[in-house]
Amino acid sequence: MSKNLTKRSEDYSKWYNELVVKADLAENSGVRGCMVIKPYGYAIWEKMQAELDRMFKETGHQNAYFPLFVPKSMFEAEEKNAEGFAKECAIVTHYRLKNDPDKPGKLMVDPNAKLEEELIVRPTSEAIIWSTYKGWVQSYRDLPLLINQWANVVRWEMRTRLFLRTAEFLWQEGHTAHATRSEAIAESEQMMNVYADFVQNFMAIPVIKGLKTETERFAGAEETYCIEALMQDGKALQAGTSHFLGQNFAKAFDVKFANAEGKQEHVWGTSWGVSTRLMGALVMTHSDDNGLVLPPNLAPIQVVIVPIYKTDEEFAAITEAATTLVSQFRKLRISVKFDDRTTQKPGFKFAEWELKGVPVRVAIGPKDLENGTFEVARRDTLSKEVVLKDGIVNYVSDLLEKIQEDLFNKALDYRNTHITEVNSFDEFKDVLENKGGFVAAHWDGTPDTEEKIKDLTKATIRCIALDRVEEAGSCVFTGKPSVGRVLFAKAY
Amino acid sequence: MSKNLTKRSEDYSKWYNELVVKADLAENSGVRGCMVIKPYGYAIWEKMQAELDRMFKETGHQNAYFPLFVPKSMFEAEEKNAEGFAKECAIVTHYRLKNDPDKPGKLMVDPNAKLEEELIVRPTSEAIIWSTYKGWVQSYRDLPLLINQWANVVRWEMRTRLFLRTAEFLWQEGHTAHATRSEAIAESEQMMNVYADFVQNFMAIPVIKGLKTETERFAGAEETYCIEALMQDGKALQAGTSHFLGQNFAKAFDVKFANAEGKQEHVWGTSWGVSTRLMGALVMTHSDDNGLVLPPNLAPIQVVIVPIYKTDEEFAAITEAATTLVSQFRKLRISVKFDDRTTQKPGFKFAEWELKGVPVRVAIGPKDLENGTFEVARRDTLSKEVVLKDGIVNYVSDLLEKIQEDLFNKALDYRNTHITEVNSFDEFKDVLENKGGFVAAHWDGTPDTEEKIKDLTKATIRCIALDRVEEAGSCVFTGKPSVGRVLFAKAY
Repeated sequence: MSKNLTKRSEDYSKWYNELVVKADLAENSGVRGCMVIKPYGYAIWEKMQAELDRMFKETGHQNAYFPLFVPKSMFEAEEKNAEGFAKECAIVTHYRLKNDPDKPGKLMVDPNAKLEEELIVRPTSEAIIWSTYKGWVQSYRDLPLLINQWANVVRWEMRTRLFLRTAEFLWQEGHTAHATRSEAIAESEQMMNVYADFVQNFMAIPVIKGLKTETERFAGAEETYCIEALMQDGKALQAGTSHFLGQNFAKAFDVKFANAEGKQEHVWGTSWGVSTRLMGALVMTHSDDNGLVLPPNLAPIQVVIVPIYKTDEEFAAITEAATTLVSQFRKLRISVKFDDRTTQKPGFKFAEWELKGVPVRVAIGPKDLENGTFEVARRDTLSKEVVLKDGIVNYVSDLLEKIQEDLFNKALDYRNTHITEVNSFDEFKDVLENKGGFVAAHWDGTPDTEEKIKDLTKATIRCIALDRVEEAGSCVFTGKPSVGRVLFAKAY
Repeated sequence: MSKNLTKRSEDYSKWYNELVVKADLAENSGVRGCMVIKPYGYAIWEKMQAELDRMFKETGHQNAYFPLFVPKSMFEAEEKNAEGFAKECAIVTHYRLKNDPDKPGKLMVDPNAKLEEELIVRPTSEAIIWSTYKGWVQSYRDLPLLINQWANVVRWEMRTRLFLRTAEFLWQEGHTAHATRSEAIAESEQMMNVYADFVQNFMAIPVIKGLKTETERFAGAEETYCIEALMQDGKALQAGTSHFLGQNFAKAFDVKFANAEGKQEHVWGTSWGVSTRLMGALVMTHSDDNGLVLPPNLAPIQVVIVPIYKTDEEFAAITEAATTLVSQFRKLRISVKFDDRTTQKPGFKFAEWELKGVPVRVAIGPKDLENGTFEVARRDTLSKEVVLKDGIVNYVSDLLEKIQEDLFNKALDYRNTHITEVNSFDEFKDVLENKGGFVAAHWDGTPDTEEKIKDLTKATIRCIALDRVEEAGSCVFTGKPSVGRVLFAKAY
């Protein structure tokens, strides 16, 4: 197993692209900007889905499914939302191919099969869902509607990167409808918290909870809550967003309810989503120059057992010990693989599972059998330890928990040492260029200043942290007054 | 809860359409031919997915995800497949909308954003997947590839019906690649058997396993295995198909491997799928004039508890008893709901849960508390029994199993009495018109005869049953020799 992985210090971006492909997570397809998610990558996504789905259901949400297509007239009903997505959407105009008379064996679009109204492939489903909710809501008794959808969406991005930015991606989108403003806001906040819990506890990625500025807000939302993470190259990544939609979509689609007094009111809405982009965050937060590092809570294989042997007799004896071990791990619901391939040497196997980020490797050789020991190696630290056979299952179980914690703490340390307060624009640029990470700076609150800073530095306001300290100051760019620092960063 | 459900005997088709909507399974959307799957319907689909997914994984398959779009040149590579789907596909031609200068606030397709090559929204994914497999297979060691995808697909059907025939539907599609013909055939057969097991054991629908005729075969397949079910109106429904693709796609996409001797060979393929169409089969097989009847193995709610009370004290006492019962059921992993709504009367609740097909209803009134009994009602037979409180949990647990069995046996009885052997074309037409079901008749084996019979009677050959008896006979239409009967029926 030759890895030939570019080092992060040489070219972080190249390292990422190579790693995603070499670790069998995903690859580019023959379709511009669309990726193929390979089985190993998809298995991680399935673990994410299962956990998120459980969390959504625990908070009272149900899944449903809405159409892939949005007729143009429906798409444009909420103007801001339409404007926000109009420039990057795939449009279906015809519904039939026919034989091309000029090119035998080739097909062409049948000009007689033009749709009366064009269909937009959903870039997000507010329009189609709110047009449906109109039929579902009459009275306050029909509220709240707490619905989630697992789906594919399409945004015609020009520059794409595996997981981080693809023309088609997989995601979940929650869409809820409420009787009151405060209930909708509480829902938006709750889902931001659910996302933060998931990303921190399962993905082992620390996040900052905050609000987006008007410029960065979701098109059609009144407020966008977000969780922001920091990658190892000092760039930020938006890991999830939860939008308070006010009554914008209810008004655009005429969704009203009779309140307890019988008066008609517009419904209040939220929407919230996370996507396969999280896979990119997972790779970029923990992995190293040897390959993937996966947090145990999301690793499709948590423990791999590799036999080291010369003779058939040794292999037979090791296989017996490994088989026992496998069943012991499975009893604790630890996902384990015994790599008994006879076609590959141990060194190859070690490198392969290292590349694929399996958290714990157990090696068993003839000496181990004699001594009643196994060699246990951690993927994250690359450290090894010889462990007595008798306590090994509990040892590994505890180790998996410790690795999960250590990964989070390591990422947290990095993140915390990469939030830098600056008080001048020179300092701002210096930190951004030479250190990276979040730059905590005063800002005058105007989109204009935000725009200018972005043009000059490529940094955007990632969020106004929910826990920021109120602090009078002067905008780092214009010198105008500010009530507290916001977090700038270059971002994915 | 007013049901106003059309009776099956009056208008079966109308009954079906009404039931799907009234039981909150699905509804038509604002997008031509596309449905909204509502939470209750989606919960049933999720149970189907979970079980099928488990069965696929147990037989060694892994999930992955491939692009929604297929470029036209890729789509047309396998000619028969392309021809089969060309007439009913949604085609993306543009990637941007712009403001319509003539209509303020309206959008139009930007003529400057025309794609160089049109993209077909996948009607099935053989093309995109085999173009990917080319990169995944070099040697026999890379085989077999055993991959499944859960996805949405689009077929531009002109006449649509909820679940049974929709422009967009959800499905799973397995796509496997093998080193030998016999291995691929064994895989196709295995997956047909997996489908049959699932449909019979979970959906409680008996099926006939068979082969499709050339006319009915999947476009691009060498052989199509299928499972055929019979609905209550005597029409057949294809519940799942598994295709042996031969080397057709391998040749179209140049997918070769080096065999153990180092010689290059084309790979052998299969594909297999079931879709949300199964939801239609589920409804049409078991349900009655009062609403849905769900088999316990797929019911989102298996048991509903309805309190019957007049005073607050009674309600409190019943709630206490019900709460205990709920936790006892949950321990046995029985999905249970205590319907404690104070806004609805018991009669309304009874009708609602009947409509929604909950297999078992437990009613608790003040007299039950006195007597230490509960009233247990079965949805399928509408029969009631008074059961002693002490043994109730095991009683209900056993009852759920019995209902599952009874539903299957009832459907099996109906199916078995609706397979009729006929030996003349008059008899053929008579049975088809007056009795319905499968007509077992001799056929001369030609597509021409098949076509003529279809034109005259609307019946198609549903399958050549795998277990049919070899029997010399004369074609019911042409009198030419035949080696065994095939099953004709009108079908969904």
